[in-house]
Amino acid sequence: MIPESDYTRVLREHGIDKISQANIRQCVAVSKAMEPVLGEPFVHLEFGVPGLPACQYGIEAEKAALERGVPNTYANVAGEPFLKEAAARFVEAFLDIKVTPECCVPTVGSMQASYTLFLILSQYEKGRDTILFIDPGFPAHHTQVNILGIRAISFDIYNYRGQKMRAKLEEYLQSGRVCSIFYSNPNNPTWACLTDEELKIIAELADKYDALVVEDLAYLGMDFRKDYSKPFQPPFPPTAAKYTQRYMLLISASKIFSYAGGRIAIAVFSPRVFKFKTPLLKERYGLTDTFGGNYIYTYLYSSSSGTVHSTQYALAAMMNAAVEGKINFVEDMKEYGRRAKRCKEVFGKHGFYLVYDKDGDEPLSDGFFFTMGYIDPETGQPMECEKLLSRLMRCGICAITLNTTCSEQEGIRICVSKLSSDADYEKLDKRLEEFTKLK
Amino acid sequence: MIPESDYTRVLREHGIDKISQANIRQCVAVSKAMEPVLGEPFVHLEFGVPGLPACQYGIEAEKAALERGVPNTYANVAGEPFLKEAAARFVEAFLDIKVTPECCVPTVGSMQASYTLFLILSQYEKGRDTILFIDPGFPAHHTQVNILGIRAISFDIYNYRGQKMRAKLEEYLQSGRVCSIFYSNPNNPTWACLTDEELKIIAELADKYDALVVEDLAYLGMDFRKDYSKPFQPPFPPTAAKYTQRYMLLISASKIFSYAGGRIAIAVFSPRVFKFKTPLLKERYGLTDTFGGNYIYTYLYSSSSGTVHSTQYALAAMMNAAVEGKINFVEDMKEYGRRAKRCKEVFGKHGFYLVYDKDGDEPLSDGFFFTMGYIDPETGQPMECEKLLSRLMRCGICAITLNTTCSEQEGIRICVSKLSSDADYEKLDKRLEEFTKLK
Repeated sequence: MIPESDYTRVLREHGIDKISQANIRQCVAVSKAMEPVLGEPFVHLEFGVPGLPACQYGIEAEKAALERGVPNTYANVAGEPFLKEAAARFVEAFLDIKVTPECCVPTVGSMQASYTLFLILSQYEKGRDTILFIDPGFPAHHTQVNILGIRAISFDIYNYRGQKMRAKLEEYLQSGRVCSIFYSNPNNPTWACLTDEELKIIAELADKYDALVVEDLAYLGMDFRKDYSKPFQPPFPPTAAKYTQRYMLLISASKIFSYAGGRIAIAVFSPRVFKFKTPLLKERYGLTDTFGGNYIYTYLYSSSSGTVHSTQYALAAMMNAAVEGKINFVEDMKEYGRRAKRCKEVFGKHGFYLVYDKDGDEPLSDGFFFTMGYIDPETGQPMECEKLLSRLMRCGICAITLNTTCSEQEGIRICVSKLSSDADYEKLDKRLEEFTKLK
Repeated sequence: MIPESDYTRVLREHGIDKISQANIRQCVAVSKAMEPVLGEPFVHLEFGVPGLPACQYGIEAEKAALERGVPNTYANVAGEPFLKEAAARFVEAFLDIKVTPECCVPTVGSMQASYTLFLILSQYEKGRDTILFIDPGFPAHHTQVNILGIRAISFDIYNYRGQKMRAKLEEYLQSGRVCSIFYSNPNNPTWACLTDEELKIIAELADKYDALVVEDLAYLGMDFRKDYSKPFQPPFPPTAAKYTQRYMLLISASKIFSYAGGRIAIAVFSPRVFKFKTPLLKERYGLTDTFGGNYIYTYLYSSSSGTVHSTQYALAAMMNAAVEGKINFVEDMKEYGRRAKRCKEVFGKHGFYLVYDKDGDEPLSDGFFFTMGYIDPETGQPMECEKLLSRLMRCGICAITLNTTCSEQEGIRICVSKLSSDADYEKLDKRLEEFTKLK
């Protein structure tokens, strides 16, 4: 246990007033600085670093491309045809959504995809300048719109699940300024999965108010309550793309294929969106008047001249292997579900509870992330973020607070990526025991 | 020769009013559509696609990294330490400039570097919102500031070489709004190289008016009039970094190592700029208060979560091989110089002249690009861009006009990357012969 005086000293040394306002890197830095006082390593529950080996099909295909010398040539900024075809097939196999290869565009990770999409979404139509985030979500998306000076609004789904979501969305959409409804599904940090009912509401309202839905599917198929692992076979993960033509989907190789170092994803456009006429963009950039054409040749090209050439071979090979049933990327990921289940049990044993706990009537899936709260014995209310994380840090447990993840609830986000051995869980158990005894 | 009626029909079919306003992709599309009429392939002088094989040291190192499984992990967004060290050594070896590894940050090509730099440069200090381009330059830089809504001003160096540059720069800098002076050296499209005298003026004025110099060194060392190929040995290419601490340098692997498909470059910060205190950015993003820290953790992170992991090994290996004298990247590039010399001779034979022809008192270097004008026999003046390119296209020669490259002069840009065989030059010769006979 770390004495309070040491803890406050370390915070001060790092220029941090409140640990609940620190970002993930600052939390890590504080934990590293406190390890000498603790005398042993922290339990790291903050990092979302996939710990599985990269998909071997990707590595082999990329090596072969290097041997053929592809790095001497820029890849097509629209994506190499073989990858665009593989992506379209993948989308059909695992989402039951049909798009043409043209509509599948590789990006330098979903990070670049969202960054460039925010720009085109906020510029393509006069007066539509606002992104509506369904939160909690990936904090980087909020930073992106801040950097780009794009107007954004958001709400926390906690109190607006199911049919309640309709009125909440309409409250924002009625202004006519919303160009896009943006969310992750399953989401980081809560692992909540929007239900088919909710996605249908989103799609209906997107059509009604002419807003474009962007679904970040970084954790595609990883709602382990159903088996989404069989290509071209139901069940398929619910998606708004089933109910509207106003959609874009972001599919990243980082988690699905454990290929985060390859920085590659696919932005999938609904064929209708891809062909949207955008005279405003033609006027501004003089290039082309379609949404898809501008996305590729104006926004993506200017952002990085496209995506790494050899990595496109990797992603195509991995997608093809998944479509052909040679790998089961959902099964590979179930390890995270097993870890989450075990980790939740350890927390539960010490009185913690899931903050975001249900999708509709169903308990949440076990996955990469979950959220934990704790009733403060002094108040009988959920312990506030600041107090909760301060005490956990003093017991050698590092995490991030929910308020840094665009949530309005009290609690912490847990990521199970660093928990692999029995010893990790035993250590966590011991430290939570100490936490409950802290005065 | 293509009849005028066919030419105007093809333009109309492509929705192009004037070929001198078409971008490079449109010019290519027009040339492809006219090939059936011509009956044989065009001579392509528009594309800047390096035609040399990728540096083998890069390929081998990247393959080895893939074998070790690095794609499963995000690379450090600040760059992997081994690459940062290699880059700092490379900068010292080939520019005689000392920076710490910390100041060398990998990006997804220089395209991402300029994109992200424009953002931080225009945001880091209140009231400094304007980029000053020294043109002609890379048109994509102008598109980038347009996309980002950043104010930019520019001037064509044609009439402002040498000491004349001082007054011209001061004219713009006096407003106090200029955050950055941005240029490429050698530059695309003219292959003009700013002289030591000019770079000193830029540096002095950067200090006087507190503007940050950004030098895009995509073609580092490729001024073949001097031998810049020996690591740690003079002569070194002149750079403003010799005369001011307010600099950033962009070093791309695309041309130097023929590794364009790898999309990797290094943004090099002067140690002083890297440590700049930027309270405005701390306030806006809440992360850190240094220029370098914000560049990496706010702008680069949000743009793509850093650079591909395996490619960082490639670039480090290529930089190390160059520093250790195992490869001579300047010598490898001289092929382009030889092509330019020969190509200029063919054009000269038919009465064409170099538009941008001298750096100070010296004739321009032969390199990747050059500019060509032609006196219109009807007016005795330089033939206008529109007429010049229309006639060349009708003779089966594709290029882009200078007005699309931020130049105010009449003429075309020639890139020699596609000219490799004797037959290419003979075909060019024959077609220019036809051009001179066109009425």
